Amino acid sequence: MAAPVAPQPITEHPFAGDPVFDAHVGGKMAVAATAAVDSREELSKAYTPGVARVCEAIAADPSLTQTYTWVPNTVAVVTDGTAVLGLGDIGPAAAMPVMEGKAVLFKEFGGVDGVPICLDTTDADEIVETVVRLAPSFGGINLEDIAAPRCFEIEDRLKELLDIPVFHDDQHGTAVVVLAALENALRLTGRTYAGTRVVISGAGAAGVAVTRILLEAGITDLVVTDRTGILSTDRDDLTAVKRTVAELTDGRTVRSGSLADALAGADVYVGVSGGTVPEEVVATMADDAIVFALANPHPEVHPEVAHRHARVVATGRSDFPNQINNVLAFPGIFRGAFDARATAITEGMKLAAAHALAALVTEELREDLIVPSPFDPRVGPAVASAVAAAARADGVARA
Amino acid sequence: MAAPVAPQPITEHPFAGDPVFDAHVGGKMAVAATAAVDSREELSKAYTPGVARVCEAIAADPSLTQTYTWVPNTVAVVTDGTAVLGLGDIGPAAAMPVMEGKAVLFKEFGGVDGVPICLDTTDADEIVETVVRLAPSFGGINLEDIAAPRCFEIEDRLKELLDIPVFHDDQHGTAVVVLAALENALRLTGRTYAGTRVVISGAGAAGVAVTRILLEAGITDLVVTDRTGILSTDRDDLTAVKRTVAELTDGRTVRSGSLADALAGADVYVGVSGGTVPEEVVATMADDAIVFALANPHPEVHPEVAHRHARVVATGRSDFPNQINNVLAFPGIFRGAFDARATAITEGMKLAAAHALAALVTEELREDLIVPSPFDPRVGPAVASAVAAAARADGVARA
Repeated sequence: MAAPVAPQPITEHPFAGDPVFDAHVGGKMAVAATAAVDSREELSKAYTPGVARVCEAIAADPSLTQTYTWVPNTVAVVTDGTAVLGLGDIGPAAAMPVMEGKAVLFKEFGGVDGVPICLDTTDADEIVETVVRLAPSFGGINLEDIAAPRCFEIEDRLKELLDIPVFHDDQHGTAVVVLAALENALRLTGRTYAGTRVVISGAGAAGVAVTRILLEAGITDLVVTDRTGILSTDRDDLTAVKRTVAELTDGRTVRSGSLADALAGADVYVGVSGGTVPEEVVATMADDAIVFALANPHPEVHPEVAHRHARVVATGRSDFPNQINNVLAFPGIFRGAFDARATAITEGMKLAAAHALAALVTEELREDLIVPSPFDPRVGPAVASAVAAAARADGVARA
Repeated sequence: MAAPVAPQPITEHPFAGDPVFDAHVGGKMAVAATAAVDSREELSKAYTPGVARVCEAIAADPSLTQTYTWVPNTVAVVTDGTAVLGLGDIGPAAAMPVMEGKAVLFKEFGGVDGVPICLDTTDADEIVETVVRLAPSFGGINLEDIAAPRCFEIEDRLKELLDIPVFHDDQHGTAVVVLAALENALRLTGRTYAGTRVVISGAGAAGVAVTRILLEAGITDLVVTDRTGILSTDRDDLTAVKRTVAELTDGRTVRSGSLADALAGADVYVGVSGGTVPEEVVATMADDAIVFALANPHPEVHPEVAHRHARVVATGRSDFPNQINNVLAFPGIFRGAFDARATAITEGMKLAAAHALAALVTEELREDLIVPSPFDPRVGPAVASAVAAAARADGVARA
């Protein structure tokens, strides 16, 4: 049935004619009914009195939520609006266009129903308790654009409290795609994880998660820098999270100093800092260097500059080759987690997602093609299938 | 773009072959993308980097949320699962099929995007604070199936705290349709509001709201009964809400006693109690009596019995004429409120909805046709238009 009434079309708006704003008029998503209510008979099945029996069945066996509701295919895209893109703390209302965009990507690339939830609180305790109260409504929680270091605590506590997947995309989505790209870059340059020296600049959400996944993948020589320099256990100015990172990366080739000190002779640079790296510093890296300059819209090293000294270059931008784009990961990760009815997203599932992504371009591998295009239709199914298998292997699958 | 991956179809389920359960497999709703992300160019408009400019515009002028997000057309369908249909406190998970059904009705009959929110708390303070934190994500709040008397407090506090429409459908949806039906029943039987004696059995969410709207519409002689009897200021066993009702209805023809005492000679009976009224009591009502026996699935008086003594009979059931069905009201009420960018749903908007509904069957009015069919395509537009006009008249419209 076509709704007899619909929102009145917005014909005039302050930025009319600007293609970006035109594309946002009325928002970017809607609810769709998948059950018919066009007749009394249909209405009595989808709604009262029929629905009462479905409610009673779920009350008797809560696992039937998985079968008779939309819950197991939904993800709440939750933000407090404190770290939106590169814009910072712009608040929950202004964050909505990004959350809607994320929901659209979940749907179009993963067949997942995303619901934007922009919270009017920035208090970690309140965010946690709010999401816990919402949890019966959703099959998973995707945290988005929540500022560090609160994002770490919020994710950790929610993972502890909930038995559905909780995933902070700014951390883990980025980490998965970086690992996929790095796997192929190492292959191209004839390196192995164990023998490779990696430097990460930026110890925020993405930097910490990239650090963890690279260590899990087998990188052993890795340092992380913040604005002050290398995170080292000798420093007494570190937050709890940075201290943990320092401990995880202690005893490497270079233990302290500046980013420039770290990069001299390094094989891999991963920038998730938003700062800049001077060309003369990039020039000190090892032969066949690998440079991932992921700050958006201004990479830490411009790709043209990086190419003078590095063999493989990636950015976060769509207008250069090798875009490290989270959309390669999160839709397939949730698709796979949901297909397996997973109760969590494990480290194994993230590694599996990265390996599956990397494998998609193994045959055609070259310096300017180390990750697939987001529009490659193999991406979602390949990631989903690898993630579901890993969920089963890790014992978190219910199907 | 068709999603390259989708939920795996559920082919086996415990109640397969039962048409009601078959209709619920996989849930009854989904998210739909209304923005295209099929190419890099589209992706860069709907998501990064383009979306950043839309976020910045909203941060600078929050009213642009109304133009560039889906928020102004969305309603959170919020429950704690404590009073679901006639099933009682079955919890948030088991309430989901009803909330999804409600969202489907919002979409199909009002063009409104409903999002089911089943809360894992039954504490009034926690429900209020949770909804307040969620509020930036939604254009309106529809409270649903929350037990009395908490439902009254929760609605009152949310209306005070939020500047978007807050509407407890079990109260006001029912009240609006009852008033519409009564308006036509009075017309049919040649009565006026002022001269009519009304008895309501049931002092829960629906009973209290019906009482209020009938008093506002002009009924002056009205008593309400609970299990103990007539709500009277002489009683010392009343909750705060029941005491208010007793004060509002004090000094009527019958001031105390049983439901049977109240009904002797009464013109109108409205049952929202779930109890039963013996035939001999119905027989004591005035000539040309009006009986609305709305308990579901078992009306307080069976329609066949009621017809022996009453001229106009209505129920909550779809298999008898004159169904008092909330779907006649809530989709059009929110459609109208949203079209007017209303900051609240006023008493005037509810009265306008009822009058608009009643007017749709004025010409064809007869004993078994006092309200339109939910499938009458004029219903949504007529209610929406009347509600939007009333919002403007009441000074709560922003458009």
